[in-house]
Amino acid sequence: MTTLGIRGAFFDFVDDPWKHVGREQEAARFHADGLMVIEDGRIVDFGAYDNIAPRHRALEVTPIADRLILPGFIDGHIHFPQTRVVGAFGEQLLSWLQVWVFPEELKYKDRAYAADAARRFFDNLLAAGTTTCQAFTTSAAESAECLFDEAARRNMRLISGLTGIDRYVPADYANTPEEFYRESKRLIGRYHRQGRSLYAVTPRYALGSSRALLEACQRLKSEHPDCWVNTHISETRDEIAAVQVEFTDCADYLGVYEKYGLVGPRFTGGHGIWLTEDEFGRFSRSGAAIVFCPCSNLFLGSGLFRIGRATDPRSRVRLAWGSDVGAGNRFSLLGALDEGYKIGMCNNAAVTDAAEAERNKISPYRGFWSITLGGAEALYLDEWVGNFEPGKEADFVALDWTAGPSALAWRQSLVGDRPRTVEQAADLLFGLMMVSDDRSVDETWVMGKRLYKKGE
Amino acid sequence: MTTLGIRGAFFDFVDDPWKHVGREQEAARFHADGLMVIEDGRIVDFGAYDNIAPRHRALEVTPIADRLILPGFIDGHIHFPQTRVVGAFGEQLLSWLQVWVFPEELKYKDRAYAADAARRFFDNLLAAGTTTCQAFTTSAAESAECLFDEAARRNMRLISGLTGIDRYVPADYANTPEEFYRESKRLIGRYHRQGRSLYAVTPRYALGSSRALLEACQRLKSEHPDCWVNTHISETRDEIAAVQVEFTDCADYLGVYEKYGLVGPRFTGGHGIWLTEDEFGRFSRSGAAIVFCPCSNLFLGSGLFRIGRATDPRSRVRLAWGSDVGAGNRFSLLGALDEGYKIGMCNNAAVTDAAEAERNKISPYRGFWSITLGGAEALYLDEWVGNFEPGKEADFVALDWTAGPSALAWRQSLVGDRPRTVEQAADLLFGLMMVSDDRSVDETWVMGKRLYKKGE
Repeated sequence: MTTLGIRGAFFDFVDDPWKHVGREQEAARFHADGLMVIEDGRIVDFGAYDNIAPRHRALEVTPIADRLILPGFIDGHIHFPQTRVVGAFGEQLLSWLQVWVFPEELKYKDRAYAADAARRFFDNLLAAGTTTCQAFTTSAAESAECLFDEAARRNMRLISGLTGIDRYVPADYANTPEEFYRESKRLIGRYHRQGRSLYAVTPRYALGSSRALLEACQRLKSEHPDCWVNTHISETRDEIAAVQVEFTDCADYLGVYEKYGLVGPRFTGGHGIWLTEDEFGRFSRSGAAIVFCPCSNLFLGSGLFRIGRATDPRSRVRLAWGSDVGAGNRFSLLGALDEGYKIGMCNNAAVTDAAEAERNKISPYRGFWSITLGGAEALYLDEWVGNFEPGKEADFVALDWTAGPSALAWRQSLVGDRPRTVEQAADLLFGLMMVSDDRSVDETWVMGKRLYKKGE
Repeated sequence: MTTLGIRGAFFDFVDDPWKHVGREQEAARFHADGLMVIEDGRIVDFGAYDNIAPRHRALEVTPIADRLILPGFIDGHIHFPQTRVVGAFGEQLLSWLQVWVFPEELKYKDRAYAADAARRFFDNLLAAGTTTCQAFTTSAAESAECLFDEAARRNMRLISGLTGIDRYVPADYANTPEEFYRESKRLIGRYHRQGRSLYAVTPRYALGSSRALLEACQRLKSEHPDCWVNTHISETRDEIAAVQVEFTDCADYLGVYEKYGLVGPRFTGGHGIWLTEDEFGRFSRSGAAIVFCPCSNLFLGSGLFRIGRATDPRSRVRLAWGSDVGAGNRFSLLGALDEGYKIGMCNNAAVTDAAEAERNKISPYRGFWSITLGGAEALYLDEWVGNFEPGKEADFVALDWTAGPSALAWRQSLVGDRPRTVEQAADLLFGLMMVSDDRSVDETWVMGKRLYKKGE
C-alpha cells in the first residue's frame, strides 16, 4: 500500500453553484492550508491541515506551495483523431468535416499513426490539466484500441468507443452496421470497466447514421445497459434541417436518439445549440446530458449555446463542458471557460429575462464547477472523480495563479499575495480563465501520481 | 550611423487581401531567405537575400533562424489605465465602467502609479509583438504624460491623448471642458510629433461628453488639424439609445462627432458594432476608420462586428484592429485574431449574402494584414510603419511557429519543417492565430533594436 499526503491550498465543490444564486461560494470548499491523504491512488482523508494531520502521524507529506489545487478537469466532448487538425481554416461544420476532418481521421487505420497520436493526445490533455475525457475515435477499431491502451498505460479515466458513421462520409471511412456492431461488442468486452476505462456506444451523429447503424447502437445499448452513449446533437441549423428530412418519423433531433432507445442516464449529446424548449425538457427529465463546447460554437460559427436556458432550475439539464478539439481550437478547458464566459455575455445582448441573464454569467464558481464536479455529475462519473471527497480517485491539478501572459501577475495582485478566502481564490481563478491559459497548469496528478510538471 | 542587416524569413504585405478574393497571396510578400538592411532604425533595403546582399558588402548580418519575421503589430484601440483590471468579472459596458474601470483609472492621478503602469503596459505590448498602439489614457494629464514619456524612452510609435469625459462618471474623475482644452493644448505642444509620438484629441465617447467638451475637441482639432482624433462609437445598443436621447439634434451616433467637426482622415471610432448602413457609408467616404475589437465584442457581450459589411468594396471602411484591453482580455493581437476569426464565422451563421459571407472569413492574410499594414493605413501611419518598404521604421516581430501550447507543433508539422512558399507561411500563421498566443512571439524589435526576447 502506497500512502502519501499532499499539502497545499485546495479548491473544490460540494454542490452546483447555479443552485446558490448570489451566494455561490456556498457551493465551493476552500482550504487555504489543506491536506489530502491518498492511499493507492484514492483519497482517504481530506480537509484543513490542522484537522487532518493529527490523524496521520507517520504520513509522508508533499507540499505544493503557492498553487491552487483543484480536481482534474473533465472534458466531456473531444475528438482524439482531430488532434493534428486543430485550427483548420475556413469552413463551417458540414464542409469542415469533408475538407479537413475525414482525410485526417482516415490515417488512424494505421495503428502506428494512431498509437503515436494517442500519446500526443494525452500529453496535450495532461498539459491542459485534463485528467478525464469522453472522446470520439474513428470508424476504425485501431483508433479506439490505441486510445484505450494509452489511457490504461497512464491509468487515466476515459470514456470512449468506436465511432460509427455510414452516411455522408467517404466510402473508405464508413462502417457497415454489422461491422460496427461486431467491433463495438468486441471492444466492450475488452475495455469496458477494465481499469479506469468505460465504454460508450458512439454513433457519430444522426445525419451520419443509417437506420441500420442506429439499430446496431440500440442493440448494443440494450445488451450492455451500463455502457455510456456519446454522440452529437443540434450543432448547426443546416444539420438539423437535414436530419428532419432524413427522419420524418421523428419530431425533432433528440427524437431520433429516443426512437432507438439511447436517451437516458449516461447519454450525452454534444453541442445542443439549437435545441427546442421541448427537447430541453426531455433532456432534463431523462437524466441525459448536453456537452457545451464553447470554442467550437465560435470556431465553426455554429451558434451560441443557451447556458441560461439549460440551467433553468425548472428543468435543469445535466451539463458537461468540452473542448471539442479539433473544432474547438484549444485543448485547455481554461480556454473553454474563456469562450464560455463570452458566449454567456453575448447571449445577454439579446436575453431579456433577468433570471436567465443571470444564469448566463459564467462566474469562476460556475466555470470551475462545470469542468470538475459538474462534468462528473453530467457524465455519471461522480462516484469516482469530480471533487476531493474521500473514496474518490486522486486526480488533481496544481494551478499557478500568476503564470501566463505577462499581464496576468499584476491583475492577480489586486487580490493580494495569496488567497486567504474562498472569494479571493475564486477571483484568482477568474483571472486564470480569462487572462491566462494552459500556462497556469503547473502539475497534473492522476491516481496520486504526478504525470505532468510544467517545463519538464 | 548604425547599419545592420537582419537575415531570415520575412512575411509582409503590399496590398489589402480583401481586394484579392480567391488569390489573397497576391497581397502578401514572402522571402523564405530575405535580408533587411537598417540604418539608424530605418529600413533602407529589403528583399531576397541573394538580390540584396551583394549591394551591402561590409554589412554586419544578424541571422534570425527558424522564425517568421513580420512587421510589428499595430493595436488601434487600447486603454493604458485598464492594464490591471483586464479580465474583470460580470458586467456589460455601462455598469462595467462604473464597477471596475473608473475606480482603477482614478489611481492614475498618482504619477508614481501611472509611471509604473506605463512600464508594465509597454512590457506587455512588446511581449505580445505590438510595437505601435493608439491608446486611451485617463482624465488626468499625469497618465498621458507618463505614457508618452515611457514610449519616448523606448522610442516606440504611439498615438495617444488626454481622455476627456465629463458626464456619467464619478465627480472626482470628470474633466471640466476648460481644463480639458487647456491641458490637451499643453500636451499637444509637448508631445505631438516629438520623436515618434503623435497626439490624438480624445473625447472618451459621446455619451460621456457634454456639448462644451465636444466643442473643446472641435476647437483643438481646428487649431491642430494634423492631430488624430480617437474615440468610441456604437459599442452597445443601450449606449446608442442613450446617445439618441442626449443628442436629439443628431441623426445617429456618428452624427454627433460629425457635428463637432471631428470625422475625417485620422479619426477613429472604436467598435462600430451597431453602425447603420448610412453610417458605414459616411465612414467610407470621409476616410475615417473603425477599430474592430474582437475580444471586447465578446468579453462584454457587446455584439459581433460586421466584418463583411465593413469590407464591402462598394463602400470600404478603413479598419484597424484593437485589443481593447481591459474590455478585451488579451494584450496579444494574436488573441484578437483568434476571436475575430470566430466573430466572422458566427456572423456567417446568419449572413445570407455569399460575398459578404466570404468577406467575413478572416484568413491568415486578412488577419495579419489587419494588424500590420491594414492597421497602419487605417490610422494613417503607413508612411512610417506597416510593412518592410525601404524608408519605413524598422519595427518587427520574430514569430516562432511551433512555440505555444503542446498541441501546436504537430499541427504545424502538416505544413512541413519550414515554410517554403507564401501559402505555407500563411498556413503556419493561421496556426499561430488559432492555436497559439503570445508564446509564439520570440523577439520584438523597435527602430532596429531588439527590445524583447522571450525568456529573458
